[in-house]
Amino acid sequence: MSEQQAVFELRDENELSLDLIEAQYALKESRDQKNAKSVLVLVSGIELAGKGEAVKQLREWVDPRYLRVKADAPQRMSNSQEFWQSYTRFIPAEGQIVVMFGNWYSDLLATAMQDAKALDDKTFDRYVEKMRAFEHDLQQNHVHVIKVWFDLSWKALQKRLDQVDPSEQHWHKLHGLDWRNKKQYETLQSFSQRFTEDWFIIDGEDEKRRDQCFAQYVLQTLQALPEHQTSAAKTWQQAEIPQVLMQPAQQLLEKEHYKDELNELTRKVAEALRCDERKVIIAFEGIDAAGKGGAIKRIVKKLDPREYEIHSIGAPERYELRRPYLWRFWNRLNESGKITIFDRTWYGRVLVERVEGFASTLEWQRAYDEINRFEQNLIDSQTVIVKIWLAISKDEQALRFKEREQTPHKRFKITEEDWRNREKWDDYLDAAADMFERTSSKDAPWHVIATDDKYSARIEVLKAILKQLGAG
Amino acid sequence: MSEQQAVFELRDENELSLDLIEAQYALKESRDQKNAKSVLVLVSGIELAGKGEAVKQLREWVDPRYLRVKADAPQRMSNSQEFWQSYTRFIPAEGQIVVMFGNWYSDLLATAMQDAKALDDKTFDRYVEKMRAFEHDLQQNHVHVIKVWFDLSWKALQKRLDQVDPSEQHWHKLHGLDWRNKKQYETLQSFSQRFTEDWFIIDGEDEKRRDQCFAQYVLQTLQALPEHQTSAAKTWQQAEIPQVLMQPAQQLLEKEHYKDELNELTRKVAEALRCDERKVIIAFEGIDAAGKGGAIKRIVKKLDPREYEIHSIGAPERYELRRPYLWRFWNRLNESGKITIFDRTWYGRVLVERVEGFASTLEWQRAYDEINRFEQNLIDSQTVIVKIWLAISKDEQALRFKEREQTPHKRFKITEEDWRNREKWDDYLDAAADMFERTSSKDAPWHVIATDDKYSARIEVLKAILKQLGAG
Repeated sequence: MSEQQAVFELRDENELSLDLIEAQYALKESRDQKNAKSVLVLVSGIELAGKGEAVKQLREWVDPRYLRVKADAPQRMSNSQEFWQSYTRFIPAEGQIVVMFGNWYSDLLATAMQDAKALDDKTFDRYVEKMRAFEHDLQQNHVHVIKVWFDLSWKALQKRLDQVDPSEQHWHKLHGLDWRNKKQYETLQSFSQRFTEDWFIIDGEDEKRRDQCFAQYVLQTLQALPEHQTSAAKTWQQAEIPQVLMQPAQQLLEKEHYKDELNELTRKVAEALRCDERKVIIAFEGIDAAGKGGAIKRIVKKLDPREYEIHSIGAPERYELRRPYLWRFWNRLNESGKITIFDRTWYGRVLVERVEGFASTLEWQRAYDEINRFEQNLIDSQTVIVKIWLAISKDEQALRFKEREQTPHKRFKITEEDWRNREKWDDYLDAAADMFERTSSKDAPWHVIATDDKYSARIEVLKAILKQLGAG
Repeated sequence: MSEQQAVFELRDENELSLDLIEAQYALKESRDQKNAKSVLVLVSGIELAGKGEAVKQLREWVDPRYLRVKADAPQRMSNSQEFWQSYTRFIPAEGQIVVMFGNWYSDLLATAMQDAKALDDKTFDRYVEKMRAFEHDLQQNHVHVIKVWFDLSWKALQKRLDQVDPSEQHWHKLHGLDWRNKKQYETLQSFSQRFTEDWFIIDGEDEKRRDQCFAQYVLQTLQALPEHQTSAAKTWQQAEIPQVLMQPAQQLLEKEHYKDELNELTRKVAEALRCDERKVIIAFEGIDAAGKGGAIKRIVKKLDPREYEIHSIGAPERYELRRPYLWRFWNRLNESGKITIFDRTWYGRVLVERVEGFASTLEWQRAYDEINRFEQNLIDSQTVIVKIWLAISKDEQALRFKEREQTPHKRFKITEEDWRNREKWDDYLDAAADMFERTSSKDAPWHVIATDDKYSARIEVLKAILKQLGAG
């Protein structure tokens, strides 16, 4: 993308306002429709260039009730939190427009300005790259992102500072920066040039033009939101189904050995989870009745209930469907502590959503890369991800279903739908095979564990966790 | 309620576990059903009395995926945040069980222990009273609250401290308290006796008995959840409809005067909102097309978009319906800043939900007290609430509906349903009249403003805000 310059002519304000309101309502009405979108406007720039005023003017021209504004002071980037983590809650739902003053770029800038040592050029550029990839994924998932930089020349900035009301003198030093310091101004400008090439740049000197440019750019965006892409780009190369999925056989374990070993391993796992300085996510997927619940029980056996959180993931709610599919996981991770266990995960996108047709071919095919980026982001911010697939044979599943139907406290676990899902057995194996091939990475490999023998399965799960934590 | 003592006999663990799982699934299955409930377990007690172990044991006996545990270190109570504000996000949805280690009582205790001066006996007791009222309202809205205190004698505590593993010595000083200090222990006990009379008390000395008592108490609770009350307790005394609702006439304002006055008032309102040290909530209700949107636009006219937040409230989502009706407002307030405007509010409970029958008679009749308590809580924590009702005559509404249908950017605002709602005009007036009578308080009165003349209505709205802020 090339740098964009303001090329809008001044328009009649009433007409502009009418057009904006129409476009805003059209967006709002798109909610739950086939081509639904949301719009996220990231706003940053030089102090006193007038980004606040421009948003204020926009909010006067539109219906202010449906234009949400989030403003937070810039925060220092942290090694243990990804750049998007404090913002994902405010990612707009279908039909919504959100303007973010505080955003990942302002955090990056603030960090670079306050502590140049912590952020060398290479790190800075890598962050920008990651941010763009994140925005790209938002875009693909129907959150249209636009970025607007409000610029101001050194001369114009000094003139504005001269005119600032004495009661608002704090602007001089806002965000820990001295806006009277030319060297600092130049450093900031050189940093900003490292990421604004795909931003819409507005010169803040002419106030009227500035406000109109901003509003017209938003209008243009609303009026030209791209159609959802649906057709898949390439022919799909189905991965071969691993042997362990076809015939999940395994050594039978004697119950005596099992008890001792289990005891020893649960102790070790608890210790390893506690001592690891990173956050730990344990992600379970697998065929129904393969024993996810039982495996989780053994993992937490020697942990204090205050040390971990279990998220059991079902079908998304409607308000979740109005956002990118990763949104509900972003939010759960934001409020989780050190150890988080997922009973089913974001891989639903390429498993049940693929098999049942809830995601289009293009969407699930794209999801592997999106998920890989998501996990890599977490790994970069000191998180270990242990991914476990529990495999089971079709006969063993039928046995367990029948057993569940006989057992009072397990009866709830089994429904007509569970039996129906068996008809799609092969589709699930295909989906699993593709998933292993495309999302097993060095840092976050899949551990595929056969569970026809429950005892050895539980042992294997614990071993897999130890191995992944480097404590095996 | 009288103090409850542990009277459970030890049971076979497998049977107990089966019963717990059955009860847990039955609760889970109640979701979206007529008698749906959730259970909130508040856990507190003497350090080392074993509340962590008891919850851990419970989590082993139940299906751990459906028992959520929230644990936060106690926080000091604050004058500017109500005791429930940091916890409401974790209030369980229908079908869920949540155990809260950190809760409003642990905050109260921590504050009292650390700063006895800030919390004299009277203030302490008033907090307890408010907390119980809050729990009562939760209970009425189908969140069943149980409170369990884990006790330990001074002697038993000292013995446990002797046995603590050296690597865990931090327990001695946990939460800023010295558990070797007898005087401190006694102070804590005397504080706890001020609020635990309606708690279930478990002695932590016998570990096995402790865990069983806790689990059996939870089981007993789950098995004996009360039916939803539905029949209204008393005959209803319908309030008389105020004249301003029947004939919302008013002086017509000349456009010239209007512009000057509006300009002056928007400036004053912005200044007053900014200078007030309290948080400000401006709550709009009123008949459709009475001009809420226009009024809001004028309020924020001279504010920076980063200074305020507008919440436009529609029908609740399904996940919101699974919680007390105030829940979605608690959460919105938690993430709002200094100035928050609501376009429709929690009063929906006694307006649309009453008129359309979405709330039972008992529920909406109870809601006045609940809402009064909710608002009083906010007022106690330094918040001003400005409540504005915009009244309109039936003829004027018809005119505006027709006008909207003719205007491109307003067409979206008007639907078949809006016309249908006119049939219930009188019911809405009844509901409004009752609401004014029962929820107008000295600190949070209703400002009823006639809007058939838009200009004077906007002026009146601004004046009402100034008046309520004490700046009029």
